[in-house]
Amino acid sequence: MSQIQTSLTQNPLEKIWVPWMSSKLNRRRGSSVPQFTNSPTMIVMVGLPARGKTFISKKLTRYLNWIGVPTKLFNVGQYRRDATHSYNSYEFFRSDNEAAMKIRKACAVAALKDVYAYFTQEQGQVAVFDATNTTPERREVILSFAKENGYKVFFVESVCDDPEIIEENIKQVKLSSPDYVDCDKEEATADFLKRIECYQVTYVPLENDKDRNLSYIKIFNVGSRYLVNRVQDHIQSRIIYYLMNIHVTPCSIFLSRHGESELNLVGRIGGDSGLSSHGSKFASVLGAYMHDQCIHDLKVWTSHMKRTIQTAEALGVQYEQWKALNEIDAGVCEEMTYEEIQENYPEEFALRDQDKYHYRYPKGESYEDLVQRLEPVIMELERQENVLVICHQAVMRCLLAYFLDKSSMELPYLKCPLHTVLKLTPVAYGCKVESVFLNIEAVNTHRDKPNNVDVDRDPDEALETVPEHI
Amino acid sequence: MSQIQTSLTQNPLEKIWVPWMSSKLNRRRGSSVPQFTNSPTMIVMVGLPARGKTFISKKLTRYLNWIGVPTKLFNVGQYRRDATHSYNSYEFFRSDNEAAMKIRKACAVAALKDVYAYFTQEQGQVAVFDATNTTPERREVILSFAKENGYKVFFVESVCDDPEIIEENIKQVKLSSPDYVDCDKEEATADFLKRIECYQVTYVPLENDKDRNLSYIKIFNVGSRYLVNRVQDHIQSRIIYYLMNIHVTPCSIFLSRHGESELNLVGRIGGDSGLSSHGSKFASVLGAYMHDQCIHDLKVWTSHMKRTIQTAEALGVQYEQWKALNEIDAGVCEEMTYEEIQENYPEEFALRDQDKYHYRYPKGESYEDLVQRLEPVIMELERQENVLVICHQAVMRCLLAYFLDKSSMELPYLKCPLHTVLKLTPVAYGCKVESVFLNIEAVNTHRDKPNNVDVDRDPDEALETVPEHI
Repeated sequence: MSQIQTSLTQNPLEKIWVPWMSSKLNRRRGSSVPQFTNSPTMIVMVGLPARGKTFISKKLTRYLNWIGVPTKLFNVGQYRRDATHSYNSYEFFRSDNEAAMKIRKACAVAALKDVYAYFTQEQGQVAVFDATNTTPERREVILSFAKENGYKVFFVESVCDDPEIIEENIKQVKLSSPDYVDCDKEEATADFLKRIECYQVTYVPLENDKDRNLSYIKIFNVGSRYLVNRVQDHIQSRIIYYLMNIHVTPCSIFLSRHGESELNLVGRIGGDSGLSSHGSKFASVLGAYMHDQCIHDLKVWTSHMKRTIQTAEALGVQYEQWKALNEIDAGVCEEMTYEEIQENYPEEFALRDQDKYHYRYPKGESYEDLVQRLEPVIMELERQENVLVICHQAVMRCLLAYFLDKSSMELPYLKCPLHTVLKLTPVAYGCKVESVFLNIEAVNTHRDKPNNVDVDRDPDEALETVPEHI
Repeated sequence: MSQIQTSLTQNPLEKIWVPWMSSKLNRRRGSSVPQFTNSPTMIVMVGLPARGKTFISKKLTRYLNWIGVPTKLFNVGQYRRDATHSYNSYEFFRSDNEAAMKIRKACAVAALKDVYAYFTQEQGQVAVFDATNTTPERREVILSFAKENGYKVFFVESVCDDPEIIEENIKQVKLSSPDYVDCDKEEATADFLKRIECYQVTYVPLENDKDRNLSYIKIFNVGSRYLVNRVQDHIQSRIIYYLMNIHVTPCSIFLSRHGESELNLVGRIGGDSGLSSHGSKFASVLGAYMHDQCIHDLKVWTSHMKRTIQTAEALGVQYEQWKALNEIDAGVCEEMTYEEIQENYPEEFALRDQDKYHYRYPKGESYEDLVQRLEPVIMELERQENVLVICHQAVMRCLLAYFLDKSSMELPYLKCPLHTVLKLTPVAYGCKVESVFLNIEAVNTHRDKPNNVDVDRDPDEALETVPEHI
């Protein structure tokens, strides 16, 4: 019996218990991340041009990657542009243009081939297939391909009959498309509307009866109504939840760390200290800055930690405290300086430098854990209009990575200095960032990855990028 | 500036930072729980009899209460039974039975009155209004009532045209209704089918066009399709997500703690120790027990802690590790005995006894935190068929409270002894529990609430309920 007790060992990086001395098969027995899906999934967009398919596709791809599901976007329009080099007019999209139809079909097939490569060679789990897919024939090609390879298919159809929304979409993203470079705006709009008409000729929406065995969501007029059919698994259920929460109302998200804390001053990480005198000054100035933004109905969120709540108090407005916004838990390293961590846990310090995203502090958290914990915050941010999030360095990096689509490699090194507000505003398919330093002095808390990340490096090498402190 | 720094103090029970010496108004400035909704919400069921409305209502009420949203169920049928005392036949439900119609309308009005009392006097946030509400007139009465009082309304319509599902529903829950006590089963079924016909005469489902301004979800044939219209806020979005995840396939959930650990043996809480020799024996016996259950496709979940993973390893099957299933974080009290906690933190120990659900360990968690952290686990359990969850005492109490609808007062004292498997099987509107002790000796880890919970109690009084240990 004692054999069982001694047969586990802890993976030093992620602190996961794994069977010791066991075969590769055994080592795979436990999965430390809940399984979202057991077979690759194709998310297949359906809808006429200018129905926001690419907006949804990009956003969904970004979200899934952020929560840790490897996802790639396949935009068939891009394949078409790569194949034809230059675009002349809507005539290309006429259903009786046989030469063009051949090219378009070839592009779809090429994209499917790349989906196959992504799933088999790149460990992909979800492919977002962004094209109009407005005919039952095209959808049948995709379904057969998926069936052959054992992939699940989930259709996302965007239906919109509100001319204002369509016009806005054309203005926002279509006129800046590579298809209309150096083209008069009105001409481009006219051509694009004719392009839509070409598709309307053969468009067959997903139908209650005929398509009752398919898994799909139909989104009507940008989320005023949804029809959901045959949800197959966890990942599809997550996707539906996400799609129902995102909205397209323009709004601003302000990200800020708390004011400089007393532990910041002395170069200690974590803890629950109050603001330094510079930190308090920042809190007041932040209040003035937000006031000047003249935002009606601004929500303010903090963590449960003293330094964020003190910062919010200076604003003199209602705020909500989220435990999920608490700083990364550094476990046994809480309230230590980097010098002390190097002295007491040199191996841990090196492991963290080797893979800062996955590294979990002993009895603490990893950035990966933090992303899981912040997922409800992101979901709620998507629902809200204007929010100021007063948070912490590691937390702000995770939130920022979501909005700016940064990889898990880049995420733990994103620069989020103290006393600097990041204002995020949605534009077309992305997010504009303005970085506003509020001109109150603060210590630097950013530590870059050092050159040497070996476990047996010299202390000097480990400490070469530690920011100055008292 | 230093004024700001010293103006916060920590609430000793929940460890929440609150403005110090401030007015009541200020103290309410920060909310430590994210706000789900800003005005009370009525969830109004719609559908013919035997469409699972009460099943959905009860389940939703239980879920919302568990996640911390005060919710109450108002079953208009119960008002009718209370008003009429005895039931004769379906004739009561004929739309031309004027006397009965009067009673039925009076019952709905009485229920609405109670909804009002619940929101105004009992701090309720959500009322689930369980009745057929099949006519536009009745729905209009509810909408006017809600508008008058500033409540939001979200309709949940269950549409079902599959005779097998309806028949099964009648068998499962209607024949045991108080209406059919001492009644022959076939007669009762015949009467109930006629009752459905009475409603069919005047039934007008929610309609895309006419009801386009209402917020609702239509559930078709027990979740094979959903139509969602005009989601207004966070709480409605949560409800939709929950409704899309629950299913009615009969399945079993097995809850077990890890085998006895080395820290259990010496009466220390928390930590990350391995199994004792009795604990290892339990792991083997658990494997044999699960094997005897002959469950196809059983999923096994553990926490990230050594003792649950060692227990799962003995089963020799695939398992998934969930960080969310980790034991409650006892913060500064981790790995202490109760005697040591009393010695080092007597006030903390007493505060915990005063309100064990809300009490948060210094640098640790409360049961309330745990419920938040376990929400995704519950959601995924609802999606799954058969699962064995190998977890921890506090975690198991939270999960059990969800399935058995226990209040937050009872939750932290639920009995979850070591080496005992709880098998949960859904029945009608609830859950059957079988408790199976696997006959391997283990220490007792259950500490009841002592009589004296005052901060200045004697150590003896604080320790009177501490279980024996080495």
